[in-house]
Amino acid sequence: MLLNCDIGESFGAWTMGMDRQVMPFIDQANIACGFHAGDPVTMRNTVRLALASDVALGAHPAYPDLQGFGRRSMALHPDEVSAMVSYQIGALWHIAESEGGSLSYVKPHGALYNDMMRDPALLEAVLVAIRHSPRPLSLMAMTTRDNGRIRAACQDHGVDLILEAFADRAYDSHGYLVSRSQPGAVHRDRASILDQAIRIAEGRSIPTIAGETVVLEADSLCVHGDNPESVEVVQAIREALGARP
Amino acid sequence: MLLNCDIGESFGAWTMGMDRQVMPFIDQANIACGFHAGDPVTMRNTVRLALASDVALGAHPAYPDLQGFGRRSMALHPDEVSAMVSYQIGALWHIAESEGGSLSYVKPHGALYNDMMRDPALLEAVLVAIRHSPRPLSLMAMTTRDNGRIRAACQDHGVDLILEAFADRAYDSHGYLVSRSQPGAVHRDRASILDQAIRIAEGRSIPTIAGETVVLEADSLCVHGDNPESVEVVQAIREALGARP
Amino acid sequence: MLLNCDIGESFGAWTMGMDRQVMPFIDQANIACGFHAGDPVTMRNTVRLALASDVALGAHPAYPDLQGFGRRSMALHPDEVSAMVSYQIGALWHIAESEGGSLSYVKPHGALYNDMMRDPALLEAVLVAIRHSPRPLSLMAMTTRDNGRIRAACQDHGVDLILEAFADRAYDSHGYLVSRSQPGAVHRDRASILDQAIRIAEGRSIPTIAGETVVLEADSLCVHGDNPESVEVVQAIREALGARP
Amino acid sequence: MLLNCDIGESFGAWTMGMDRQVMPFIDQANIACGFHAGDPVTMRNTVRLALASDVALGAHPAYPDLQGFGRRSMALHPDEVSAMVSYQIGALWHIAESEGGSLSYVKPHGALYNDMMRDPALLEAVLVAIRHSPRPLSLMAMTTRDNGRIRAACQDHGVDLILEAFADRAYDSHGYLVSRSQPGAVHRDRASILDQAIRIAEGRSIPTIAGETVVLEADSLCVHGDNPESVEVVQAIREALGARP
Repeated sequence: MLLNCDIGESFGAWTMGMDRQVMPFIDQANIACGFHAGDPVTMRNTVRLALASDVALGAHPAYPDLQGFGRRSMALHPDEVSAMVSYQIGALWHIAESEGGSLSYVKPHGALYNDMMRDPALLEAVLVAIRHSPRPLSLMAMTTRDNGRIRAACQDHGVDLILEAFADRAYDSHGYLVSRSQPGAVHRDRASILDQAIRIAEGRSIPTIAGETVVLEADSLCVHGDNPESVEVVQAIREALGARP
Repeated sequence: MLLNCDIGESFGAWTMGMDRQVMPFIDQANIACGFHAGDPVTMRNTVRLALASDVALGAHPAYPDLQGFGRRSMALHPDEVSAMVSYQIGALWHIAESEGGSLSYVKPHGALYNDMMRDPALLEAVLVAIRHSPRPLSLMAMTTRDNGRIRAACQDHGVDLILEAFADRAYDSHGYLVSRSQPGAVHRDRASILDQAIRIAEGRSIPTIAGETVVLEADSLCVHGDNPESVEVVQAIREALGARP
Repeated sequence: MLLNCDIGESFGAWTMGMDRQVMPFIDQANIACGFHAGDPVTMRNTVRLALASDVALGAHPAYPDLQGFGRRSMALHPDEVSAMVSYQIGALWHIAESEGGSLSYVKPHGALYNDMMRDPALLEAVLVAIRHSPRPLSLMAMTTRDNGRIRAACQDHGVDLILEAFADRAYDSHGYLVSRSQPGAVHRDRASILDQAIRIAEGRSIPTIAGETVVLEADSLCVHGDNPESVEVVQAIREALGARP
Repeated sequence: MLLNCDIGESFGAWTMGMDRQVMPFIDQANIACGFHAGDPVTMRNTVRLALASDVALGAHPAYPDLQGFGRRSMALHPDEVSAMVSYQIGALWHIAESEGGSLSYVKPHGALYNDMMRDPALLEAVLVAIRHSPRPLSLMAMTTRDNGRIRAACQDHGVDLILEAFADRAYDSHGYLVSRSQPGAVHRDRASILDQAIRIAEGRSIPTIAGETVVLEADSLCVHGDNPESVEVVQAIREALGARP
C-alpha cells in the first residue's frame, strides 16, 4: 500500500502545505501544474524536493481556476479537458526532465477529479491526454466497491490504473465517499484513521457510515500535509503500514 | 534559407493571424504556448495544422502577460524565466506528441526575445530550459553583424543555434534592427522586401538605413501571416527563394 | 423599444466586434468588464465610444473565464457571484466616471446570464451586487411569457427591470429561447428578423417554433455587431423601429 | 501620526497576513484589489473587517501579476497604468459601498509604487486615475527629504497627498530607503523601530545609514501584519504613539 499526497500547492508569494515535512513519509507526490496552484518555480522546487526523497512524481492537473483552487466545477467540453490536461502534464514533465526526473502518473485535481469520476466523457478525455505520453503514465482514480467501468476504460487506452482510497473519510455501502456536508463524513480521531488505513491495506472490509461493511481494493492511500496534525497522522500511517518499499 | 512565422496566436474566442493561409509557404511554425496567446485547444489545432503541412514545430514561449500579448517587458529573475520557459516548452511538447509530432526548436516571443538578446543572464536562463529536453532543441535567435557571443553561449550548453533575419525590417551598420519608432524602419514595398530576402539568402550584403552595407548570416527569415497582404508577401518570398526543401 | 448590444469584447491585442460601426444604431451598450473580455484600456476606449454616440452604459459582468469567453458555466457560490459582480460593476463605473459618464444598468454575460435565469439564488446574488450602487442601476434580463418571478425579485431589492427579447432567435410556447442546437433556432433571413422585431416592439404576438404564438413584453431588443452582415441587420431594425429616442 | 498597513493580500484558498490581529492597531488599510492579491470575496471580507474596526479604506492597486505578487516591474504605457488603476479603484469602491463604506485614498503597490516614485509619467498616470473619482481620494506616497515634486504634481490634479514613512527601514541622506540588498537596510530590533517611529512622529531627525541625520515629513507610518512578531511591533508603535485619533 502506497501513500500519495497533494503537493506543490503554493503559488507565487503564497505558501500552502507542509511539503517538506510530509515528503519523507509518502511514495507519490501529486504535483500541482499551474492551473489551480503551482507556478513554474514552485513546480521546479517541488520536483527537486520529491526527487530528493525518492518520491514518485505525478501530475495533478486541474480546471483553469486559481481563484477557486480548482474546486469549482466548470462546464468544459471533453476536447477542452483533453488539451488542458495534456498541456499540464507536459509542463510538469519538462520541468521534471530538467531536474533529472520523470512523471509516472496523473491524478486530476478537485472538481476535475470529481467530474471525471461521474462523467465517462471526461474520463475518456483525461485518458486521451494520458495515453499519448512519450513514456507510459498511469491514471490515479478513486476506488469504489465496483471498479469495473473505470478499469475497462483504462484498458481500452492501454493506461494502468492506480486506485486510491481515503483513510480519513467515511464510505457508504457502494464504496462512495460520504459527502463532507454530512455528519460523520470525516474521521477526526487518529485511531479510526489508522484502523481504516490498516484494514484497506490488508484487504479487509471497513465499516460504512450506515453500519454495514464494504471492501475497497486500493493501491494507494491519499494523505494530507496541510498542517502539523495531518503530517503526524501521515507519519503514523506510514509506521503502521511499514517502511516505504 | 528557411521561413519561420509566429503561429497559433489566437486565444479562446479571439482569432488572430491567417495561420491556414500562410502555413503552406513556411518551414517553421513558432507556436504560442499559452502565456501571451494560445490556449491548449488552439495549441492542439495549430500543431495539427502544422503537421498537415509538414512544417517544423517550434515553441514560442513568452512572459505571462495575455493582456499585453507578451510585448511588455517584465522584471523576472533568471530562475523564473528558466522555469517558465521549461513549463511552456513542455506544455507544447506533450500536445505535439499527442498528435504524433515533436518539437525541434524554441524561439522566445516579444519582450522576452528582446530582453534575451540584451541580457546574457536571460539568454542563459533560456538555454538552461532548453538543454534538458528529452530530445535536442535548437534556439532560434536574432542575427546581428557579430553572432560570436550568442554562438558561444549556445555551444556551452550544447544547443544548436538557428539565426533569423527579417526581410521587411531596416538594419543599422551593426546588424541591429532599426527601432520601429524611426522612419524607414519597416520596408513597406514588396520589391524591397523581396530584394532583402534574396540578398540575405544568398549571403550578400544588404544596405543599412545609413546607406552603408552589412552582411547578415541567417538560417531562417521571419515572415508574417497577419493579413492577406502579408501572406502574399510570404508567398512571393517563398517563390523567390525556391520550393521548400 | 430600445436596442442593446454586447460591446467592448476585445482583449489586449485581440479585436472582436464592429463596435464603431454598430454604436450609432443602438441605445444601450453592454460593456465587458475584464472577466470574459475587455481589459481596462479597452473598457475606457469603449466608454468613450459609447459616450460619443450618446449610448447608455451597462456593465456586462461574467464568470472569470477569459479562455472560455464567459460561456462556460462555473459552480460558484452565490456569495462569490455577488462579490464578483460588484467588483466588475465598480471597475467599469470608475472608468465611466473618469470619462464623464455613468452606468445605468447591469446585464450579466453568457453562462452567468443563463445560470441567473435558471437559479433564483444566483439572481438574488446579482441583485445584491446591484442594489448597493451609489446611484440606481437596473437589471437587464431575458423576457419569457411570464416575468412574474424575476419582476418580484427585482422589486424586493428596489431594482428596476429591463426586459430584453431577441429578434433573431426562435421562441417556444413558454417564451423561452429555442436552444441553438435545434434546427430553426436562429432566424437567418432579414425579413424574419425584422418582422419579429416589429411584432415585439408593437406588443403583438410572434409565432413560436411549434407554430403557436406567444406575446413577449420587452423593453429592449438584443442585437449583434459581430460582422458587417449583423451590423446591417441592426441598421435595418433601427430604421424599422424609428429613430433613437 | 497615522499607521497604515497592507491588508487583504490573501487570494482564493491562500491566506496571507494576520489581518484580523493587526486591524485594531492601524488607521488605514491598504486593500489589495485583485491584480497582485485579493479576489472579490477576500476584498469584501477585508472591507467588512476594516469597517468593523473603523479603519479608513484605501485602494492598493498593482500591476497585473498575481504570480509575482505585483513585485515585478512591468513596462506598461502610462495610459495602461491609468486605466488599470481606475479599474482597481472602482472595483474596491463598489464593494466598499455595498458594505456601507467608502474609499479615502489610493496607495499603489509593490513595483508600481516604486516605478511611480521614479517615473513622473507613471505618477501622472496614477493621478489621472484618482482625480476623476466621484468623491475625493488622496494619494499615499513615499516621503523623501524633498517632497516638492510629488506635492506639486498632486496639487496640479487637485489630489491630497498622504506622505508615508517606514519605521523599520534605514534611510540614506536623501531620505530614500536603503535597498534591502544592503546590510543594515532593515531594522530588526524593536527598540530601533520604536525609536525611529517616535522620531518621525515628533518631526525630529532620524540617523541615516551613513551616520548623518535626515528629517522626514510624514502623515502615516507603514507597518506590517505578516506574522505574530510584526503584529507585536505594530501594537508597540501604536502604544508609543498614543491611541488612535
